[in-house]
Amino acid sequence: MTDFDTLNTLNGYFQAMPPVAATGIRARDFDGETLRLFAPLAANVNDKGCAFGGSLASLMTLAGWGWLMLNLREAGLVAEIYVADSQIRYLAPLYDDLIGDARLAPDQDWPTILRCLRERQRARAALQAQTFDGRGAVVATLSARFALIAAPTADPRVA
Amino acid sequence: MTDFDTLNTLNGYFQAMPPVAATGIRARDFDGETLRLFAPLAANVNDKGCAFGGSLASLMTLAGWGWLMLNLREAGLVAEIYVADSQIRYLAPLYDDLIGDARLAPDQDWPTILRCLRERQRARAALQAQTFDGRGAVVATLSARFALIAAPTADPRVA
Repeated sequence: MTDFDTLNTLNGYFQAMPPVAATGIRARDFDGETLRLFAPLAANVNDKGCAFGGSLASLMTLAGWGWLMLNLREAGLVAEIYVADSQIRYLAPLYDDLIGDARLAPDQDWPTILRCLRERQRARAALQAQTFDGRGAVVATLSARFALIAAPTADPRVA
Repeated sequence: MTDFDTLNTLNGYFQAMPPVAATGIRARDFDGETLRLFAPLAANVNDKGCAFGGSLASLMTLAGWGWLMLNLREAGLVAEIYVADSQIRYLAPLYDDLIGDARLAPDQDWPTILRCLRERQRARAALQAQTFDGRGAVVATLSARFALIAAPTADPRVA
């Protein structure tokens, strides 16, 4: 299920950030468990015609950030969301448009994270993201931890 | 010592890559041991006015890539340079222009890497990079490994 308004909200955030707007990264699909992003290769090539590593890092980091923003929104919470650290593996050069997705890491429990955020105003969440080539093979992976800071009145924030 | 032609060559590569040109990342100084890059905050802000995490990742990855390109060139070698993996820590939000540098990781021996590349046509190299705020405090760090593949006639490559 893709909620058009939900994706539009997220894409509004992406478009408002100059380095993200320049790379054409945008949300394509969100079903509550997985958020999928897309970016055109043309805006993200290196000098050899394949995807720039920094663009893959941006896409996967934003996929994790977006996942958190949308699921917090779903839970009726607003928080500042900062990426704290990440590990990226570049497995193969990518000559196709960039398609990546993110989901909660398997060892994480979302209800516990929400409870922690409600009770302590702060929480941490670990996400996993990957990028695929045109045939669906994984070409890069990211594991990242995000810090969530409750912000009762403000908009979600990105670091 | 900054070699103007050397920095110009590197900046030519950066400018030729659309996602790098869009963020205004450019080389500022290289003394053989440290390569320093710069990018204006305006082209790299997130929705809250501080530096986008993906831009910090790009700047530090390119600092490592550029360090290798320049030092290989210094050694009379040309190789394809691919980032293989990286670990990034985001320590504090950055509200200044982006200034970062890279150097060889302390446990690495550059002559050994060069010998390996000459003899086996392939080598690995570990780099460390960091980003500073306007007062010189470290706001992000990156550790990355790069794969080098000898390319006798081609230009250096970036992943």
